[in-house]
Parts: sequence; C-alpha cells; structure tokens
Amino acid sequence: MMARGANRDEPETGGGTGGGPPPDPRKAAVRVQAGVLHAALKDVTGVVAGRNTVPILDHVLFAAGDGRITLTATDLDIWVTRDLASNDRDGPDGAEWVKSIRPFVLTLPAKALLAVIGELDSEAMVTIAAPGLRLSPGSGPQGEPGGDNRAAISAGRARFRLHSLAPDDFPQPPPMAVAAGFELPCTVLGDAFAAVEHAISTEETRYYLNGIYLHPFQAGEGAPMDLRMAATDGARLGRVLLDLPDGAASFPAVILARLTVAVLDKLMLAAIKGAPEDAEPPRILIEAASEAPGARVRFALPAGDGGTVEVIAKTIDGSFPDYARVIPADPPLRAVVDRAALLAALRRVAVLGAAKSRVVRAKFAAEQLTLTVSTLELGEACEELPCAWAGEPLTVGLDSKYWREALLALDGDEVALGLTYAGAPVRMRGVGRDDGSESDRLVQVVMPARV
Amino acid sequence: MMARGANRDEPETGGGTGGGPPPDPRKAAVRVQAGVLHAALKDVTGVVAGRNTVPILDHVLFAAGDGRITLTATDLDIWVTRDLASNDRDGPDGAEWVKSIRPFVLTLPAKALLAVIGELDSEAMVTIAAPGLRLSPGSGPQGEPGGDNRAAISAGRARFRLHSLAPDDFPQPPPMAVAAGFELPCTVLGDAFAAVEHAISTEETRYYLNGIYLHPFQAGEGAPMDLRMAATDGARLGRVLLDLPDGAASFPAVILARLTVAVLDKLMLAAIKGAPEDAEPPRILIEAASEAPGARVRFALPAGDGGTVEVIAKTIDGSFPDYARVIPADPPLRAVVDRAALLAALRRVAVLGAAKSRVVRAKFAAEQLTLTVSTLELGEACEELPCAWAGEPLTVGLDSKYWREALLALDGDEVALGLTYAGAPVRMRGVGRDDGSESDRLVQVVMPARV
Repeated sequence: MMARGANRDEPETGGGTGGGPPPDPRKAAVRVQAGVLHAALKDVTGVVAGRNTVPILDHVLFAAGDGRITLTATDLDIWVTRDLASNDRDGPDGAEWVKSIRPFVLTLPAKALLAVIGELDSEAMVTIAAPGLRLSPGSGPQGEPGGDNRAAISAGRARFRLHSLAPDDFPQPPPMAVAAGFELPCTVLGDAFAAVEHAISTEETRYYLNGIYLHPFQAGEGAPMDLRMAATDGARLGRVLLDLPDGAASFPAVILARLTVAVLDKLMLAAIKGAPEDAEPPRILIEAASEAPGARVRFALPAGDGGTVEVIAKTIDGSFPDYARVIPADPPLRAVVDRAALLAALRRVAVLGAAKSRVVRAKFAAEQLTLTVSTLELGEACEELPCAWAGEPLTVGLDSKYWREALLALDGDEVALGLTYAGAPVRMRGVGRDDGSESDRLVQVVMPARV
Repeated sequence: MMARGANRDEPETGGGTGGGPPPDPRKAAVRVQAGVLHAALKDVTGVVAGRNTVPILDHVLFAAGDGRITLTATDLDIWVTRDLASNDRDGPDGAEWVKSIRPFVLTLPAKALLAVIGELDSEAMVTIAAPGLRLSPGSGPQGEPGGDNRAAISAGRARFRLHSLAPDDFPQPPPMAVAAGFELPCTVLGDAFAAVEHAISTEETRYYLNGIYLHPFQAGEGAPMDLRMAATDGARLGRVLLDLPDGAASFPAVILARLTVAVLDKLMLAAIKGAPEDAEPPRILIEAASEAPGARVRFALPAGDGGTVEVIAKTIDGSFPDYARVIPADPPLRAVVDRAALLAALRRVAVLGAAKSRVVRAKFAAEQLTLTVSTLELGEACEELPCAWAGEPLTVGLDSKYWREALLALDGDEVALGLTYAGAPVRMRGVGRDDGSESDRLVQVVMPARV
C-alpha cells in the first residue's frame, strides 16, 4: 500500500533549508504538500470571520494524535474539523508516517496561513514546526517562558514565522451525546438545500427565518412519513420533501442556520467532486444531540481528498412559522409555461426595471402569457410566451428576482403556476415530462407585488 | 487614412407617424444582429458614466448617412464613434442595404440598451425604429408634438420601447483641423501603454499626473529623435521609448488622460483580436489638432469586426514634470535577479503585510537577495534568492505592490536593479538574453520606503 523510501521512520527535522544551527528534531510537527494543506484550510476557514474581537477565533487549531492530524476552526456557533488526510513526507500516502509522529496541539492565524499556503506551488512540501509544542490542551505551558511563541513554516526558500496562541484558549465544542441520526447521499441533501435556500431570510429581526427548517412529517396517523425542508422570507417560500431515511422519524425539528447550510454546501460539493467516478455518491451523516434536543446538530462526511470532515453546529433557537398555510392547497387557476423560455424572457424584461423596481406584470390570457415591465425613466419592455391557460384573463405582479430564483430551483421542462386571484400567492411546481402531472415533492411560492 | 465623420447634409424625406399597425416601413431604421450591435455598444459605452446630471450623456447617438450607421457616446472629454459595421438584414454583409436606408439620427439610453441587447441571443435580429426620425441635428422637431418619443426595439417576441432624447442636444466634438499625425501598430502602442500605465497617479490634486505623457524627444542637436511615454505618481515611474514614427517629429507633447488610455486599451485589444491571423497587426492613427496644439488628440483604428472606431479626446491641460531627473542616470550599485523568481517570492512575502503595510525589506549581499516582511500582528516572512551583487551589503525598503507592478511591466528573464544608497530611487531595466546588457528602451523607477 505504501511506497516508502529507505529511512522514513525517523522524525522529520523542521526548518531544513540553508545554513544555521542544526534544527531541533523535537520541533518537527507537520510536513504536508501545500496543495493538500490548502484544500484542508479552505474547508475549515469558511467559518472564520474577517476580524474577530476574540483573537483565538481568527486561528485554526492543528492537533495530532491517534494517528491523525486535524484542523479545526470555529465561530462559536459552528465547529468544522477536518483530517489532514494526505499528510506525508514525499508521496500522496503518508498514513504510516502520521501515526509515527508524536501528538501535539498548535494554533495558527487561519486567514494569513491560507494566504501564505495559497501562494506556494501546490506540489511544494510545507513544514510547520513550533518551539515547545504541547501534547494536548491543558498539559502544561506553551513554549518557553518568555521565549518565541511563533511557529516556523517553511517551503523551499520561503520561511514564515507566524504568531501562535495558547491552544488552551481554543474553544472546544460542547460534548454531544447522539439522540437520533440518519444518512443521506450528499447529492440528495445538496439538491434539497439548493431547492429552498434562495428563500432564506436575511432580516435579522426575524432570526427564526434565517435558516432552513428541517423536520420529519406525517400527514395523519397511519399516513407515510417523510422528511421536509422549507425556507421563507415572507415574500417567497421553497419547500421540498424527501423519502424518510432510516432513523429520521425520531429526529427533532431543527432550523439550520444560513452559514451552516453554506458551509455544508461547499463541503458536500468537494466530497462529490472528490469521489471516484464509478462509486456511489458520498454520504453525509446527520445527528442530533440528546441534551436540549435540536439545539445542536452534527454532520460527518468525506473530505474531497479522502479524509473526513465533521461539522458541529448550533441550530437557530426559535419557532419556524406554520409554513404549510402559505402554500395554496388547490389554486383554481392553472397556467403551464415552458420553464427555460419563461426564465429567458424574465431576464430580458427585468433589465428595464433593474435600477428601480423588480416588479414584472404577468398577464395570463388565452394561450398567451405577456410579461411587461415599465419605468418612467427608461420606457417599457414586453414579451409574449405561449401558455396553456383556460380561464378569464388575469394580471399578477411578481418580483422578477424572486420569480426567477423560484423557477431556477424547480426542475422539469415545464412549470405549472397555480393562481387564485391577483392578490393571492402563486404556487409553482414542475410538470412531469411523461404524464403532465404536477410533482408535489418540490413547491415554490411567490407572493404577489402591487402593479 | 480613415473616413471622417458621416456627412449628414441629406435632404429630409419626412418622418413617420407615431405607432399603430400596420407598421410604417419608413420607420424601419436599424436592423442588425444582436451580437454585432452588442459589440459596437460595448466599444462606445466605456465613456458613459453611471448617472450623469446631463441626461443626454447617458445616451448613445445612432446616425445613418453616407452608407454607414455610426454609434457615438461621450462624457464631454472623450468622444467615441463606431461604425455599425455588419449592419444587415439577413446576413453578415449588408453593406448594400445600409447604403439604401434613409439617413436619420436617434438617441437611446446607452446602459439600458447595452443590457437589453446583451440578454438577446447573439444571432437574433434586432430592429430599432422610432417615430418621426430626424435626418440630422437641427433639421426640425423630433417626433410628433406631444406624441410618443420612444424608440421601438424588437427582437423575436421581445419588444422594448425606450425613451429617446432630441438628437440636437447630443454634444458634438469641437471641429478639429489636423496639425500633425503618425501611425503605429496597435500592438506597439498597446505594449507601450501597458509598460507605463500602472504608474499613472490617481490623486486628483495632482491632475497633471493623471495620465501618460507622450512627446517626441531629441537628446541634442543632431542626435536621433525618438518618441517617449512616461507616467508617474511620485512614488514610482515608468518610461518607454519608441523609434520615431513618420510624422511624429512635429507632434506636440500631450498628456493622455487615464480614461483615454483605458478606452484605447480596450479598442486596440479588440482590433488585434479581430484582425485576420496572417495579416499585419492593425494600425492606429494618432493626430493632434492645430487649434490650441495638444489640447485635443484624435485616434482612428479598425473595430474588432471590421468597421472603424474614432476617438477624440481632450488632453490634460497642465505641465508634466521633468521626469527624466527622477531616473538615476548611472547608479553605482547593480544587482541582477531572475525576474519570475523575484515576482513569485514578492507575492509570498507580501501576504503577511497585506492588511497593514506593503513595505518589504530587500537586503542585497554577496550572491543573495533576502526579502523580509514583518508585522507585529502576524509575524515574519522571509525568502532568499540568488542574486548577482558585487558591493557591500545594502538594505532597501520598497513598496511590494509598486515593485511587483514594475517587474511585471518589464520584459526579459532577468532584471537589473540599479541602486545608489538606501534612500535613493531604484532603477530597474530588463537584461538582454544574449549579451547581458541592459536595455534602456523601458525603465521603471521605484522610490524607497522607510523600513
């Protein structure tokens, strides 16, 4: 399995370029390809904000032990921990070598390290060493008293000394006992997020709308259960349902914060991209804590390069509104339009409103949908589309951005718009290719705007 | 030489009436492929600012006559006029058709039109028509009194009506009699601009530094003349010299404003890209006005798709400083470094200073250049490079951004740095591949920073 050279079992020496006194072998901590380290840093630094008032939150924690090296970053709401999977000396598989190195913990400024590593040739070997490395948090003072607390990073002729902070101060996630959990293919969870996340509210006053609501659902006793996700900002709503995965029936209802969703989106994409071509799509494990059920969720999935990533996230503490009431159950009027043609026409007519208003007037009439945008400043844009429509003509105003995002989140060649009257919410669902029936798995709702 | 502006002294044939089917064939004004119109609009709208207090400056002027249709935009300092070269009805070559259409002038909001046309399929045919089209500025009232003054733009099922303004109000460039002129390949002028434009000042208080100084130069009587360009912001300077083109000896010294240079950069790039592969590089004509010599310059070059573009630009009215005094004539100390290696090392060490300071400490010593950046916050970055150096060790502080931009503007595999003492300007020139001699055609100077 491992292609190893002759004498690879001795501890690697730090520094190692040019002159100077012989480097202290005890300082050797991490030796890894720049490209591998860069990918790992990108995975975890998504939660590091620009400039924290608590300096340690700007840092990433390196920890070696139990045969692995991990990187952790946190904003106190989300912890992302990542294997440095391909840590090695000279080749892509250095698992044996990782097992041989002695345990340590070390913090480094995350953004600066990411930038520094990003400027190196991705094939270059990076050595990270620090004086007086600690074995674990709490096991004694870091570094020499009054000594240099900077870690040395070197690659080729480039050498960096970055300030390190005491790893004791790095916040650990609260311990978590697992109450319920289930698994999904990353592709399935990723598609479900993509179908609803455009509707997540950014209004901080309605903080309980700042995420995706995930909950198991049963329509009535004896009815089959499913797993639902919804997001809304009051002006539009997306809702998707999935077949109930094993173990999800007892999962608590949770609101996953916007940043959690964004971090998972990136990680799942990397996992899908990194998976071997013929393999099953990588799976993500979702677990809820038993203490204060629903207050914390843990995710585990493969990293893009074969290690594992763990995300522990606080959920939003609030009640998600009874969103089902917003979805028109059986709208009496129905229009069916080609989805791609509608999207293209919306893009064109919306150009005129771009600077002032996003409202587009949609007039449904016999076999024709007419989209109009007018502005006092520039003039008017108008486009007609073929449209299956049986009733009296009806004109509805819709926000062109919300409408486009809803259409983009749907699938299928055609979209069915369910209407009631000009002031009522518009329900949109994809139309099945084969039988022309509407699928209820994925629903988008857009509230009308005044025209 | 290129054709001058269109002759607009055609007899009037009367305008159409405003709207209502059947369409009046006399209203048909422009019919052109969306892709062709979009390229032409992009060429001219570079001078249209976001939101002008004078509404007409937000508009582009269409003018047909003399067998061509032109688009013009201006910010009152620069006028860009562009042929709608491939204007046609059904194919790529509609020159005959263009000749057959009746003369007109028409203004349309530039940015809105660009956005609208950009959303169309580039193959789609666009028709622009307006009621009561005018033959030329000043030839009578636009449109019907109290009628619709909007132009109709249609392509497929998409229809737009954009407000048009009276073409009379569109500012014409002052008439210009040519005093001197010369031609250069676009590649040569483009390279010369690229070699110095990074050093153009953005400080509005020193407005006379907000451009490139262009002047013919003769070192002394009997010495050969050349054509020089220079830019400086006080902290660095770029200067390039070209063989004197025919006609340039009598060209006045001018300061070409930053926006003029940017507009020409884009147009020259399009001309070079659009030229047939085996052909000579397209040439640009540069002419100076005889009234108030040097106050206005005219440029003419081919458009990317075969038409022509004309740029008339006011020059900056001020005295460019005697920049030659800033260039060390014969610096006593000389270092020679690999240019690509120095650039890569600078990029890496500069990461640490990114947030706070761009100063990098460069220590020249026997056969080695050491670059160091230190910050209180993050730590220190250091990299060594092989370097030909004969003197005592010398440490100089340089702004890493200015240094990198100077190196990028130079050519050759190696760069020679001419130094005097730590506080003196540093001269940089490329080193010839063959004989190791320094070329004086292109010089960069960077002032030292305190370390």
